[in-house]
Amino acid sequence: MKRKLAILGSTGSIGTQALDVVREHSDKFEVYAITANNSLDLLIQQAREFQPEIVVIANDDKYPALKEALSDLPIKVWGGSKSIEQVVQDEAIDMVLTAMVGYSGLAPTISAIKAKKPIALANKETLVVAGELITSLALEYRVPILPVDSEHSAIFQCLNGENSPIEKILLTASGGPFRTFTKDQLQKVTKKEALKHPNWDMGAKITIDSATMMNKGFEMIEAKWLFDVAPSQVEVVVHPQSIIHSMVQFEDSSIIAQLGLPDMKLPIQYAFGYPNRLKSKFERLDIFKLATMTFEKADTDRFRNLAFAFDAANRGGNMPCIVNAANEIVVDAFLKDKTGFLKMSDIIEKTMQKATFINKPTYDDYVQSNAEARRIATEMVH
Amino acid sequence: MKRKLAILGSTGSIGTQALDVVREHSDKFEVYAITANNSLDLLIQQAREFQPEIVVIANDDKYPALKEALSDLPIKVWGGSKSIEQVVQDEAIDMVLTAMVGYSGLAPTISAIKAKKPIALANKETLVVAGELITSLALEYRVPILPVDSEHSAIFQCLNGENSPIEKILLTASGGPFRTFTKDQLQKVTKKEALKHPNWDMGAKITIDSATMMNKGFEMIEAKWLFDVAPSQVEVVVHPQSIIHSMVQFEDSSIIAQLGLPDMKLPIQYAFGYPNRLKSKFERLDIFKLATMTFEKADTDRFRNLAFAFDAANRGGNMPCIVNAANEIVVDAFLKDKTGFLKMSDIIEKTMQKATFINKPTYDDYVQSNAEARRIATEMVH
Repeated sequence: MKRKLAILGSTGSIGTQALDVVREHSDKFEVYAITANNSLDLLIQQAREFQPEIVVIANDDKYPALKEALSDLPIKVWGGSKSIEQVVQDEAIDMVLTAMVGYSGLAPTISAIKAKKPIALANKETLVVAGELITSLALEYRVPILPVDSEHSAIFQCLNGENSPIEKILLTASGGPFRTFTKDQLQKVTKKEALKHPNWDMGAKITIDSATMMNKGFEMIEAKWLFDVAPSQVEVVVHPQSIIHSMVQFEDSSIIAQLGLPDMKLPIQYAFGYPNRLKSKFERLDIFKLATMTFEKADTDRFRNLAFAFDAANRGGNMPCIVNAANEIVVDAFLKDKTGFLKMSDIIEKTMQKATFINKPTYDDYVQSNAEARRIATEMVH
Repeated sequence: MKRKLAILGSTGSIGTQALDVVREHSDKFEVYAITANNSLDLLIQQAREFQPEIVVIANDDKYPALKEALSDLPIKVWGGSKSIEQVVQDEAIDMVLTAMVGYSGLAPTISAIKAKKPIALANKETLVVAGELITSLALEYRVPILPVDSEHSAIFQCLNGENSPIEKILLTASGGPFRTFTKDQLQKVTKKEALKHPNWDMGAKITIDSATMMNKGFEMIEAKWLFDVAPSQVEVVVHPQSIIHSMVQFEDSSIIAQLGLPDMKLPIQYAFGYPNRLKSKFERLDIFKLATMTFEKADTDRFRNLAFAFDAANRGGNMPCIVNAANEIVVDAFLKDKTGFLKMSDIIEKTMQKATFINKPTYDDYVQSNAEARRIATEMVH
């Protein structure tokens, strides 16, 4: 029996790599549904190749063109973001990969959990925004959440077969392209420079988040929820070679680490095939070529977003949702040359101060908070 | 219920550290039996502190003194190496730690397996000499063999919960004190220099084996039997910091590693407590203090013993037994200033050529081979 997959965000960086994994293991996996936000042409091409049951485009304006383009095939074509929430509930689906960008991953993930679909989680913002809600729903519906972020997949692999408490998570970070920059240099960073990540080829939003280290802050929050640890149990370790993808220290002092060349296809494949490891042709690490691995502390003075993430995680409630919303606005603005590199942190900080804090938010509160924080941050951009 | 332990070789480096672990976790472990070869005074002291049921001294000459020294205590006192084979069969014993040096570990280990005692294996020579026999007996009597060597404990921890095939084992090696020495420098190495290991504080025999890298060769053979891999699947990685204790690469390209400060008490405790990790006060690795980890290929041109071990493992039969016997003779001779550092390898090589090769040795064949190889090597020393 092939595992039937729904790939949410199939035209993005993770989505296309997920399809590479399916292509490589077509005896094991089958694409049942693909969804995209806007990328019409690539979505059509993917639909023609993988012949899924259902294809969804979130942007309603592009629905007619998609429908038309696939009219010769026996594929159901849906439009609108609400359709994504519906498609994941299809009885035939065995696993849902959430690879959309940002806050938009939240509603479909909740919908998939309620339909008891195992989640391959690539959309970290879902856990950043509403980790408490998502993890309690996953528990209630007994749905496994398999992390697809390389760091969390690493931690998950390190915890394989372990029944002992975690003492500390060593969350590795490449440090991004500006690891050695001074504040003055950071002040002048351009979009073009920020989009060049030294080790990972990713989408624009996460690449900027990596450059500001907000990505690492979000990963800490993600780890908090996935592995039930306190923020103080997560230590960020700057490891510029990106070979160790993270480590877990246990109470007996032993540390287990997961290593490999940076390649997102490995964690995707691991989640899809779990609990089995599938034979792959991925390039192997040549440890002799590597020769050296180094480790540094993260600098929250130059990379203030990291401190904001820890602060938000410690305060809890809707604070991480506020940080995420503000961050989505400033990253979008930065990518449109409407704000500077360091200015992004200033706006996030002020949004955290101005937005309404809610200690025990409901789902509706998250929706409100997200909207409020976006409004506040947007005002500061202009 | 406390786990009742038999500690064979209690006065050696591993044995004394095993007793440290028991001392630290006296709520979980109890010393039921201790055995030593010669170290009378320490054995008496240990017996007085831990009050085991049985104490054995292998050297018959020292039996009367031991008996006399413990006469005021309700402790059974036995003498002679055959007594060690008997003591491990005691019904009350839950686990046997084999921490003797060299070939002498073989018979008691077989005896313990036949009595269905889980083995915490610190005596690697047992697997080097007779790996096929030991692993088939362990299978037949359904006895777990828990490795205590730091590298094999690391591999064992990396395999925890994994049900996928091993692609490759990356067996790390400190490289010993002479890692950067030229052949000319090696020629002049003294006993005193060889006994100074940069990272590990161990017994004399294993310290010399580390300096010649025979230890790593033996560990490769040990890994072959413990984890059912071919010698070609074991890659020796020289990692002078001794922080990564070994790694396993799986078929999906993922590598799992185990790390920590060098401390033999961790693998001992892991075996004793398995499958649980016990909370420990062992010093934690400060990865920022470490700053860098490096990796090099092993040089079998300068460290010929490593090549002999691979050769012996590939040829199989009694060849590893022959290598081990010759090695025990030359190390002993080196420690008595009767042979030189590089000369040790020459004698081992010639013994491999001269001793009778047996493709499918029985236990008696191993006994014969061991005696023959010792005779041949001894002649070359003099």
